[in-house]
Amino acid sequence: MTERFTGLVAVDAGGTSTRAVVVHPSGRCLGYAVAGSGNPTAVGPETAAASVAESVMGALRRAEVPSTGIRLVVLAMAGTGSTSVAAEIRRRLAGMDLDAPLVFESDLLATYFSGTHLPDGYAVIAGTGAGAIRVEDGRQVAVADGLGWLLGDEGSGFWIGQRVVRAALADLDGRGPSTALTPLLLARLGVPTPRDAGDREPIIAVVRTLYGRAPVRLADYAGLVFEVTGDGAAARILDDAAAALARTLSAVRTPTVSGPVVLGGGILGRGGQLADRLAAESGAEEVHAVADGALGVSVLTLRHAGTDVDAAMFQRLATSLTALR
Amino acid sequence: MTERFTGLVAVDAGGTSTRAVVVHPSGRCLGYAVAGSGNPTAVGPETAAASVAESVMGALRRAEVPSTGIRLVVLAMAGTGSTSVAAEIRRRLAGMDLDAPLVFESDLLATYFSGTHLPDGYAVIAGTGAGAIRVEDGRQVAVADGLGWLLGDEGSGFWIGQRVVRAALADLDGRGPSTALTPLLLARLGVPTPRDAGDREPIIAVVRTLYGRAPVRLADYAGLVFEVTGDGAAARILDDAAAALARTLSAVRTPTVSGPVVLGGGILGRGGQLADRLAAESGAEEVHAVADGALGVSVLTLRHAGTDVDAAMFQRLATSLTALR
Repeated sequence: MTERFTGLVAVDAGGTSTRAVVVHPSGRCLGYAVAGSGNPTAVGPETAAASVAESVMGALRRAEVPSTGIRLVVLAMAGTGSTSVAAEIRRRLAGMDLDAPLVFESDLLATYFSGTHLPDGYAVIAGTGAGAIRVEDGRQVAVADGLGWLLGDEGSGFWIGQRVVRAALADLDGRGPSTALTPLLLARLGVPTPRDAGDREPIIAVVRTLYGRAPVRLADYAGLVFEVTGDGAAARILDDAAAALARTLSAVRTPTVSGPVVLGGGILGRGGQLADRLAAESGAEEVHAVADGALGVSVLTLRHAGTDVDAAMFQRLATSLTALR
Repeated sequence: MTERFTGLVAVDAGGTSTRAVVVHPSGRCLGYAVAGSGNPTAVGPETAAASVAESVMGALRRAEVPSTGIRLVVLAMAGTGSTSVAAEIRRRLAGMDLDAPLVFESDLLATYFSGTHLPDGYAVIAGTGAGAIRVEDGRQVAVADGLGWLLGDEGSGFWIGQRVVRAALADLDGRGPSTALTPLLLARLGVPTPRDAGDREPIIAVVRTLYGRAPVRLADYAGLVFEVTGDGAAARILDDAAAALARTLSAVRTPTVSGPVVLGGGILGRGGQLADRLAAESGAEEVHAVADGALGVSVLTLRHAGTDVDAAMFQRLATSLTALR
């Protein structure tokens, strides 16, 4: 008689990559794998579902756990619960003999629980997009922003990247101050610097290149703002981003919940000056920067399985996940 | 023996509509007609060319002039000289027995010459997009901005409309101050006002509606900023737009050319507070607000035909065109 393993799978599907964790019900991470973008809005439901399936398969292989032994899959994804993506993911999991219930969770809540096991607090996420949530009793009870690149996402990677490009173009165009962002952007795009003050070829080349891509790709240039020092334009962009993210956090704040504040996403999760400023402005005693939602979705998965994740179990999950990465 | 009429056709192809004028070589407008969008970027080369042909046919009919009597067509169009749109327009004009040379001109220069016959000065255009030019000796010698909704067009209808929508969403989301723009936008979109502070349905409805359209359509909401008085958010948007357009104008200024300054496009051409502020900031003695480029492309057409347009002829053109509209 073979004993049937009953484990859990936690998946954090993000815009850049998708992370899957095989979690032992006792609160230890057994396997971990990464695949491509799992954001259905960015890459379509087919590709997103394929990334989810690939990451799950990789994590099961790494854990040396059979797919038939999994009793629950929890998936953190932006815009949870689209029926077309859910159906496609179910189809692919069934195709690999993984016949467990599939539960969708908020990617923002997964980020929150990557920083703390405490049931009440806040998360501010700034990656390509940006938003904030308030968590009470382990549930996401309020949300601000997250309204996308065109109408919201203030202080996000897109928002910063668009300002970086606009500052460089205004400099080249004589409409704005000279900035160290300009040569950085031109070098990044492989566009030669202007021959003289009247040379508009670099402007035309930048404009043609960037309109040839999806608008959201402007987030690719957000990182340039961190590469310059003592630059007025860059400092203004960072000031404005910190102020925008502080407004988003304040929109979900309530006096009865003091913290912790978890900072996540590609822009805030890496720490650094923007995270430091937001942490200072938030006035919170406990601030954690987290790289992604993999640990948090593991916490959520254990909670869905009926396990209360206390400080000791949170620490065990974090340590075992770090060892696998 | 029938005498063959030798007239000229001037076309101002814009994003919203296309205007054609039949001009007598002596400097009088004989016919005028309007058709749909003539912007190939907005509606594609086929539709843009159809609008041009339709407006030309209407103006010829109104002038009671045969197409065989036209010896030159001058067409002012954004992004002049795309070969595919030029070929399509030539094909359609030939189909209506109009076998005259077709010359492309800058739509910005057409706007300039709608305000003055003087060969040296400036134009600032803010419609859906925004940009400025310097004119010397009747030619466009410098340009600033006009870099499109994603990367430039600062102070344009898109730029203002996006800020109007963002201000309303920030208000609804608790991230920004209360503004009179919010109820105006909700009414315009047919979205009910929130039932209580936690009701996110209006936010979701606005976001869903606007992401379902082309981004540039946000320009449709620019007009709301002029409909409120004593509103902080609206005043800030107008302040920022005036400052942005002033920066764009200053980028093309040179000490040897003092003016006039012509203000055009749907946002500036209607006059009003934004045009007044820009006029004051420009310090120019002579400022003209113009509705479109129909008069200016008529001036350019006469110049291409070898006629020097002086003050008297400019006045005659303007008066005869007004009588036809």
